[in-house]
Amino acid sequence: MATRLTILGASGSVGRAVADVVAAHPGRFEVEAVVAGRDARALADVALRLRARCAVLADGEGGAALAETLSGSGIANGAGEAAVLEAVDRDCDLVVAAIAGTAGLRPTHRALRPGRRIALANKECLVSAGAAFMRDAAAAGATILPLDSEHNALFQALGEAPIESVEAMTLTASGGPFRDWPAKAIAEATPQEALKHPNWSMGAKITVDSAGLMNKGLELIEAHHLFGLPAARLRALVHPQSIVHGIVHFRDGSLSAGLAVPDMRVPVAHCLSWPERVETQIPRLDLAAMGCLTFAEPDTARFPALRLAREALEQGGAAPTVLNAANEVAVEAFLAGRIRFGDIARLVEAVCTREGASAAPAGIEEALAVDFAARERARALLQQSC
Amino acid sequence: MATRLTILGASGSVGRAVADVVAAHPGRFEVEAVVAGRDARALADVALRLRARCAVLADGEGGAALAETLSGSGIANGAGEAAVLEAVDRDCDLVVAAIAGTAGLRPTHRALRPGRRIALANKECLVSAGAAFMRDAAAAGATILPLDSEHNALFQALGEAPIESVEAMTLTASGGPFRDWPAKAIAEATPQEALKHPNWSMGAKITVDSAGLMNKGLELIEAHHLFGLPAARLRALVHPQSIVHGIVHFRDGSLSAGLAVPDMRVPVAHCLSWPERVETQIPRLDLAAMGCLTFAEPDTARFPALRLAREALEQGGAAPTVLNAANEVAVEAFLAGRIRFGDIARLVEAVCTREGASAAPAGIEEALAVDFAARERARALLQQSC
Repeated sequence: MATRLTILGASGSVGRAVADVVAAHPGRFEVEAVVAGRDARALADVALRLRARCAVLADGEGGAALAETLSGSGIANGAGEAAVLEAVDRDCDLVVAAIAGTAGLRPTHRALRPGRRIALANKECLVSAGAAFMRDAAAAGATILPLDSEHNALFQALGEAPIESVEAMTLTASGGPFRDWPAKAIAEATPQEALKHPNWSMGAKITVDSAGLMNKGLELIEAHHLFGLPAARLRALVHPQSIVHGIVHFRDGSLSAGLAVPDMRVPVAHCLSWPERVETQIPRLDLAAMGCLTFAEPDTARFPALRLAREALEQGGAAPTVLNAANEVAVEAFLAGRIRFGDIARLVEAVCTREGASAAPAGIEEALAVDFAARERARALLQQSC
Repeated sequence: MATRLTILGASGSVGRAVADVVAAHPGRFEVEAVVAGRDARALADVALRLRARCAVLADGEGGAALAETLSGSGIANGAGEAAVLEAVDRDCDLVVAAIAGTAGLRPTHRALRPGRRIALANKECLVSAGAAFMRDAAAAGATILPLDSEHNALFQALGEAPIESVEAMTLTASGGPFRDWPAKAIAEATPQEALKHPNWSMGAKITVDSAGLMNKGLELIEAHHLFGLPAARLRALVHPQSIVHGIVHFRDGSLSAGLAVPDMRVPVAHCLSWPERVETQIPRLDLAAMGCLTFAEPDTARFPALRLAREALEQGGAAPTVLNAANEVAVEAFLAGRIRFGDIARLVEAVCTREGASAAPAGIEEALAVDFAARERARALLQQSC
């Protein structure tokens, strides 16, 4: 029987990889609903390509354009937040949760249903509201399948092993475009330079996060919630070739590593067909042709964002929520040319330092409130300094 | 409750690693019986160290020395083949099958019992009698746990995944001491040069096999029987650091690799405590300190033994039994200084070529008969050429 999918974030880079995998396996998947943010044209395209039953744009203003493009297609459509949540409510087996940013919190949380699988690419569910989200997922009886390449590799490498048998987990980082740059040059890097990711093609926000290793820091926080390991047992390792994505260190000295070419269709294919494995035509890894895989400790002096994220994880409570909110504001300002690359971590640290200890958000709405307040503080600090 | 072990091949390099792991976990293991070949002193030492209930020497002539050394210890002892099989019959949960060579066939086969775990390090059970051995193990309801580092890594990396989801498996080879040598120098290498293995400390026979990549070829044959993949889906890859031991290639493009420092105690600890994982104090892998892992295709022009083993695997039937027997005679002659290193593969090929197609041995005794006949032919060819 075909797996019925709903794709949240259908027009982004993850959504496109999902569409590719679905299109490559006719009959195996049926698409119930596709949801995107603002791009009516891209959403209509993917809805038509995948023969989705329903297409919804989060941005209410784009609804008319979407309806016009889909008129006569027989595809139900709508726009606005309520329509997004209704799309999530439609019956399906698996929800791909790939809306970027805190915009993904409510729809992803709403997707938690008994027996449903959630292929989770939205970071904020775990970074901003991890404890509440994982608690609610367990209570709802939903299965969370990590879709990020690193967490997916860890999930695969862990297999059925109990987490008690795990001594540590390592997430690899390519090191980004500034891997070998001196600190001063990094501090003054331009958006154009930060957006040149060596291995992955992703959105602008996550590419900037990768350049400063904040992305890896956020992933450590995600891994903490996904797998239940404390900060001290979670490691980041620079691995420029992006072939080994995650490593599980077992307590007996054995290690199990998840590898693949850097192509999002690999973890997508895994999540969509789990617990089975679908045959794919994605180019295969050829280690002999690569010749060499290299590894190095990350340099938190040149990449302070990784240190900040680790500190937030160690502090716990609302600290990761604040960190993430401040970082979003800082990256936005950087991409807009208002601050330098080195100012991103500086602003995040300033916001985090001003924040006292506070409890982890009890739910999604509380996480959104903490997030909102932290953004306000970040914007205020930004205005003082600019 | 403690796991009751019997250790076949207790005085060899695998046996010593087993003793180390057992000694490091007081109360977790009880040793029922220890069996060794000829070294009464070493066997008595390990029996006393592990407080075994019974110690048996395969070589009947050493029985008196063993009895004398163990007198007053309360440890039952004996010598000769019948006593070995009686030791195997003693009740236990797990048998470590680490007798080297065809001498391991009967005792290991005798160890197959309902619910028993067999930590298998003896190659010949799989190379010389693989189909019969695996059939009898399944019929007996015994669980085979691969103890070789490569097969153990594959076993761990595969986890609970069905073999249908596997596209290929890769076993790595250090490349041995002749990895970068020109063909002519390899052909004329001395036993002293062949015995310098870069990463592993093993017996002389297997170290010579490693130097010519015959060992990797035999391991491909083992993997075929352990995991049920055809020759075309089994690969060897040169990896001089011996950190990645085995790689499972899944049909969706994901790969799962088993890694560890090259220390036999790692797979030993895994097999002894499977399906749990015991905590060990074995030094941990530090990829950042290593810096680089390298990979290359094996060169079958310089290392023809790998090609011969692959051909025997592809031919099937009794071909691997003949290959293995001829190789043992050839390595013996090489170690005795009678032939050059390059003659090992030449002799093996000559014996295999003269052998017509014949069915896989129907059981252990038939495998031993095929093995015996092939050795005779190898010795005859050896005498003609010397």
